[in-house]
Amino acid sequence: MSPATPQYDALTDRFTRIHRFAHLQHMAHWDQQANMPPSGNEARSAALAEMAALLHRLRTDPELGGGLEAAGHESLSDQQRANLREMRRQWEANTALPEALVERRSLATSRCEHAWRTQRPANDWVGFLPNLKEVLAVTRETAQRLADRTGLTPYDALMDQYEPGMTTAKVRQVFGEVRSWLPGLIRRVTEKQAREMVLQPHGPFAIEAQRGLCERVMQLLQFDFSAGRLDVSAHPFSGGVPEDVRLTTRFREDDFLQSLMGTMHETGHGRYEQRLPRQWLGQPVAEARSMALHESQSLSFEMQLGGHPGVARLLSPMLVEAFGDQAAFMPGNLHRLLTRVKPGFIRVDADEVTYPAHVMLRFDIERALVEGEVEAEDIPALWDAAMMELLGIDTRGNFKDGPMQDVHWPEGLFGYFPCYSLGAMYAAQWFAAMRREMPDLDTRLDEGELSPVFDWLDQKIWSQGSRWTTDELALHASGETLNPAHFKAHLESRYL
Amino acid sequence: MSPATPQYDALTDRFTRIHRFAHLQHMAHWDQQANMPPSGNEARSAALAEMAALLHRLRTDPELGGGLEAAGHESLSDQQRANLREMRRQWEANTALPEALVERRSLATSRCEHAWRTQRPANDWVGFLPNLKEVLAVTRETAQRLADRTGLTPYDALMDQYEPGMTTAKVRQVFGEVRSWLPGLIRRVTEKQAREMVLQPHGPFAIEAQRGLCERVMQLLQFDFSAGRLDVSAHPFSGGVPEDVRLTTRFREDDFLQSLMGTMHETGHGRYEQRLPRQWLGQPVAEARSMALHESQSLSFEMQLGGHPGVARLLSPMLVEAFGDQAAFMPGNLHRLLTRVKPGFIRVDADEVTYPAHVMLRFDIERALVEGEVEAEDIPALWDAAMMELLGIDTRGNFKDGPMQDVHWPEGLFGYFPCYSLGAMYAAQWFAAMRREMPDLDTRLDEGELSPVFDWLDQKIWSQGSRWTTDELALHASGETLNPAHFKAHLESRYL
Repeated sequence: MSPATPQYDALTDRFTRIHRFAHLQHMAHWDQQANMPPSGNEARSAALAEMAALLHRLRTDPELGGGLEAAGHESLSDQQRANLREMRRQWEANTALPEALVERRSLATSRCEHAWRTQRPANDWVGFLPNLKEVLAVTRETAQRLADRTGLTPYDALMDQYEPGMTTAKVRQVFGEVRSWLPGLIRRVTEKQAREMVLQPHGPFAIEAQRGLCERVMQLLQFDFSAGRLDVSAHPFSGGVPEDVRLTTRFREDDFLQSLMGTMHETGHGRYEQRLPRQWLGQPVAEARSMALHESQSLSFEMQLGGHPGVARLLSPMLVEAFGDQAAFMPGNLHRLLTRVKPGFIRVDADEVTYPAHVMLRFDIERALVEGEVEAEDIPALWDAAMMELLGIDTRGNFKDGPMQDVHWPEGLFGYFPCYSLGAMYAAQWFAAMRREMPDLDTRLDEGELSPVFDWLDQKIWSQGSRWTTDELALHASGETLNPAHFKAHLESRYL
Repeated sequence: MSPATPQYDALTDRFTRIHRFAHLQHMAHWDQQANMPPSGNEARSAALAEMAALLHRLRTDPELGGGLEAAGHESLSDQQRANLREMRRQWEANTALPEALVERRSLATSRCEHAWRTQRPANDWVGFLPNLKEVLAVTRETAQRLADRTGLTPYDALMDQYEPGMTTAKVRQVFGEVRSWLPGLIRRVTEKQAREMVLQPHGPFAIEAQRGLCERVMQLLQFDFSAGRLDVSAHPFSGGVPEDVRLTTRFREDDFLQSLMGTMHETGHGRYEQRLPRQWLGQPVAEARSMALHESQSLSFEMQLGGHPGVARLLSPMLVEAFGDQAAFMPGNLHRLLTRVKPGFIRVDADEVTYPAHVMLRFDIERALVEGEVEAEDIPALWDAAMMELLGIDTRGNFKDGPMQDVHWPEGLFGYFPCYSLGAMYAAQWFAAMRREMPDLDTRLDEGELSPVFDWLDQKIWSQGSRWTTDELALHASGETLNPAHFKAHLESRYL
């Protein structure tokens, strides 16, 4: 018996093959960050560029275009039709880019990211700049190609790859609103917190103890260690594949909160990946919906849960076990530590109140860079001005804690930053929906019961993969599309 | 200006591409052994099978066959001609195997090896057997295909992939000779050593201290850590790529000698890879000459150097630093410890005197398996009989320390085992040649100077890659082809 949907089935075979090659790419990329010794980089970059080119060829094979057309006429289930929609979306993005450009981009970003690892601690902006300029050049060319195909502006075309449907206009509207109340909120919160008494933990905190703590917390957050690991890299990230999730963190002996919160963040990403619909893995419909949705998971873990008094109660005995008894580890004090608001240099260390400021300044700069309104040389001045305006911080000459702090630009991930703050807004929206559905949620969290949160996220977000568009998913999950009012309400309720 | 050798140049481009894809394959394979959590295996196996199939297609592309033919008529340098010879050799072996078989083999060995990791400690021969039978089935089919192409017997055709030019007849001649004097030598050595007083080190030996010790010893052996790493896996091996060598070991708290000697062994492999001719990397002529030559390097490090009194003198203070002062760590006692001869179950833990017995029994069994004279079910009985005959050891029912101890069969590496003992013979031959050229070699080793050995190996072996055939290389390096008399002389001189 021949299958009823031969064209569609042939497409799924192709995508399964792509998934398998991408597996090797993701693992080599993770290894490059987590394990690779420095002299291995040239060969690795060449190998990754070769793989990027192969994947690009597979994803842009003209036969695939014909198959997408033909499969549309077959009798498909809703799930299959959603898969076909996602296949088409990827096809459109991929066919916009010639192979030589994809290869050049892979090489430029590998080189820039690798050099950045030593240039950043050395505060070496001058050494970093030529590599970044090359990354920016291929990024602009990429953006232009995508813009030509989609009719979007170059920056919107990049953003569309991470957050389908999101536009500069929409981001500006949402961020504009946040800008109107954020500086005032930061002021009120910091004034209020200045009157609170908070005990600081005493270090040093042994790296091995921190590692053990992070793994215990990942277990608490129900990360599946039979299908994933925690390792160390210069810039923490969630990598690997859904079947084998590789989270990374970094440790400092004088501060365990950074790695602890970072690990909670990455665990949110990791659980989303681990719980994507397994029976569809390898197909576009099984992939995470979007990057803002992904960040909504990491921030649900790091911020929504991490800042909850019930979670502080769970963490408290774990800290005592890891580092010995300290008054600072008492639940109430720990909760105050985990919800401290303080303008600072580093985005990944920022609290959830000042975080949007970091994102807004990056959005403004990278949009202007991509649209050709400014050049890479202009970044420090723009950075310094925005940091002073938004957070009152002087960053002049401090490149390593300024525009060199993030891996995104070295890796060519322009258009990604807005997803962090959109994700924070979605996370607030999810918890508002949970509280409507489960009025006793905070009581249960206070009693140390986290499963209601995980079950809700699993059912509404993780298990849905890319079955729906972002707007549809948000509507199904919470009864409305993105509504930043929940974020404001969350911050005011938690911090004022 | 068009190149003078367009066909040859096109071939080198192809092989560079293959080298880059193989990079990802090797890294994913290393990760599978060193890092991967258990639930990741199914996706990894599928990804590796997909890559094996791709590499097979690239290596058997009909255009490649035409190019090899055409390039032969171009005006090539000696080095280029050697490269072309190696390209042809690989082409012959690869085109003998259909893609479906390569894929089946990759799947079968991935599954078998992965299950073996838990089956071995559980002594679960019954669970292991069906997987091994499937590996044996694809191995026999592979061997038959290679035999049809080469005119060799099936087992010789497998062996030829690891040790080009080696035959069962030659192995039997060499091993037959060893068999004639080995049991007598083992008896005389063990009797002599029974009269020696040897202090045993007192454990436990902390894993972290062992890891530090192994890394210090690798530095002593001039392993380049900027282009490689040491990690942990169930079965120690040297993996990765020449540009980024990944060695593995395993630690036991009650015994540091196993990881120490294993690490010295893998470091020999690793330095060979790291010192292959860099300007030719990616081309077949830059690959290690053969597996016996590779083992001659690991055994030069582990046995020739590891059993030298001068090296015991270098290791002694490192042991004291790692584990604290013990009388057992005094150089003289340490040297006796490192040259202890004792028949035992485990090949990788065997001393250099009893080691050939382990190899000879595996050679007999795997040759008969491949040639269809016996079946996988017969292995335990054959194993038990040979262990009793050669080493006087009862292995009945002890599968985990018997036929399940090695990763080779689960991974489908039939035809490899003889290389270990051929390698030991070559290693003895290299040191005999060094001593002829440098009569003061032992004095210099006794004074802690290892560079003369490394310089000789680098110049004669490592930097030569596959420029010569094995016989030519041995002739250039030592003035003669394989001569097992040096091995016998070495053992008698060191142990009697």
